[in-house]
Amino acid sequence: MSDLHFITRLHDAVNRKRNPVVVGLDPRFEQLPKDIVRSAREAGSGNLAATVAAAFEAFCLRIIDVVAPLVPAVKPQAAFFEEWGPAGCAALARVMRHARQAGLIVICDAKRGDIGSTAEAYARGYLAGADPDAAPWAADALTINPYLGRDTLEPFVRVAIERGAGLYVLVRTSNPGAGTFQDVVSDGQPLYRRVACVVEELATASRGVDMFGAVGAVVGATYPREIAELREAMPHTTFLIPGYGTQGAAAADVAAAFTPDGLGAVVNSSRGIIFAYEKKPYSEQFGEHRWEDAVAAATRDMIADLASHTPTGRLEKP
Amino acid sequence: MSDLHFITRLHDAVNRKRNPVVVGLDPRFEQLPKDIVRSAREAGSGNLAATVAAAFEAFCLRIIDVVAPLVPAVKPQAAFFEEWGPAGCAALARVMRHARQAGLIVICDAKRGDIGSTAEAYARGYLAGADPDAAPWAADALTINPYLGRDTLEPFVRVAIERGAGLYVLVRTSNPGAGTFQDVVSDGQPLYRRVACVVEELATASRGVDMFGAVGAVVGATYPREIAELREAMPHTTFLIPGYGTQGAAAADVAAAFTPDGLGAVVNSSRGIIFAYEKKPYSEQFGEHRWEDAVAAATRDMIADLASHTPTGRLEKP
Repeated sequence: MSDLHFITRLHDAVNRKRNPVVVGLDPRFEQLPKDIVRSAREAGSGNLAATVAAAFEAFCLRIIDVVAPLVPAVKPQAAFFEEWGPAGCAALARVMRHARQAGLIVICDAKRGDIGSTAEAYARGYLAGADPDAAPWAADALTINPYLGRDTLEPFVRVAIERGAGLYVLVRTSNPGAGTFQDVVSDGQPLYRRVACVVEELATASRGVDMFGAVGAVVGATYPREIAELREAMPHTTFLIPGYGTQGAAAADVAAAFTPDGLGAVVNSSRGIIFAYEKKPYSEQFGEHRWEDAVAAATRDMIADLASHTPTGRLEKP
Repeated sequence: MSDLHFITRLHDAVNRKRNPVVVGLDPRFEQLPKDIVRSAREAGSGNLAATVAAAFEAFCLRIIDVVAPLVPAVKPQAAFFEEWGPAGCAALARVMRHARQAGLIVICDAKRGDIGSTAEAYARGYLAGADPDAAPWAADALTINPYLGRDTLEPFVRVAIERGAGLYVLVRTSNPGAGTFQDVVSDGQPLYRRVACVVEELATASRGVDMFGAVGAVVGATYPREIAELREAMPHTTFLIPGYGTQGAAAADVAAAFTPDGLGAVVNSSRGIIFAYEKKPYSEQFGEHRWEDAVAAATRDMIADLASHTPTGRLEKP
């Protein structure tokens, strides 16, 4: 079973690609390249939701094909698909399956959380783990929300261990207002540190042969001090770090998340990569008709940026 | 716009039915009546997810038809549908639409939460509000999770106000481990009281002509002391109370949630109603072939129980 453990599979992917980049699949209809929208309109029934869903699917499939040789993982954001109803959900399922077939680790960013058997239903639905066919949504890992309490994380952990899947519990999110509740101090300790403590326990208990467990933490790149502090407090917890790029964080901000050999964290960029064609320097270099080249260039630039400013430059091909 | 406000529509429904009961739609395949499963199998393609989804839809549609004349609202639990993938999601959308057509208030229990434009995507997808056609998921209201911070609740509130929809923010959940983080005390105040304070502000700011705003709170029936305390601290916040029945709470436990005229809260029961046919006294009285009569009887018993032990007995037909 150990070679099916989430961390083994994640590190294998990170080592093979020699970088920790996660490409976030956050499609927005108004930002899609025109050729994608045109094809979806022509093929469609005139129903807007069906057209948008078809366009999202085509767009994400092409991004997956561009980034699969470059990066270890993708992170579809469920909200953007769900916004378009059942058609969007069907597109999300196919996008996730395509990413698995392309050899990518798929982190479904759905931030789920509920109690008891309801949590278990989410876990069984999303956490396919090592076998993409084990669940209708073929996720290797899922983001989850801790507010409901430790007992509501446990059903997710049980299913994750059983299936070789991973979890990323929200600890310190990347938004400006993250501190409203996460920073509330009690006995000298902010709330996110208490969440971190529970997550570290679950991580330790979910270890296979690796130092890191199947339970990880979401820690925003926009809070570099907290990244360093949490890396120290959570030695067995792997990190998922959003906020690089469009949200304002730089490679140096996330350096502390990694072990000296460049493992222990993956870093996500969504809009900065998938809509690179809209922004300088890529817009000037490629233009909209070459949006896929812009995706590849932005991905390569992010990989190089992280390699220069973090220990991920030391990752070696296995 | 005021007659389209969520609270106006909710109170109208509560007054017309003279009770605050929400029937939770939490379908589980292994508990469905055999006739439902048989029909779905016969009509199906042999694909398990499609069969389960068809069975869930048929089961929930029949429950809706039974309870629509009796109660003001239903609460579909998204997890049980999502567990079965896109087919489950399509069933959920149709169930919600059918409930709206039957004149019920639909509270989608999906406990969503995310940052900025992602939160807005969830809000636009789920919060149909006064016009069931305004979103692919025809919810009147949605449950949301506060952990990510106040700025992540605001996009939901904006869309809710715009569309006459409602929100229920998790404040005190009904599970045994709810206290892990919700009870962490800082400056003499547990975390759930801080969340309550933010929710009360959002509730006050989202008021129409009524005393209560469009932003409500989830407060578990299993914590009666907290219900009383929160009712006092949150005079403009309407409550959604899970945990009655199967989770162990009784009518007297929720009495403090109501205003003297029986408004200000709705109380959910899921398994205790929809699977009533499995349990005494209903199993003896009806048996599985009369499961719909068991649903109706359990619903009427809950209405009567609440009327005897809470101010909802004073609700008068408008």
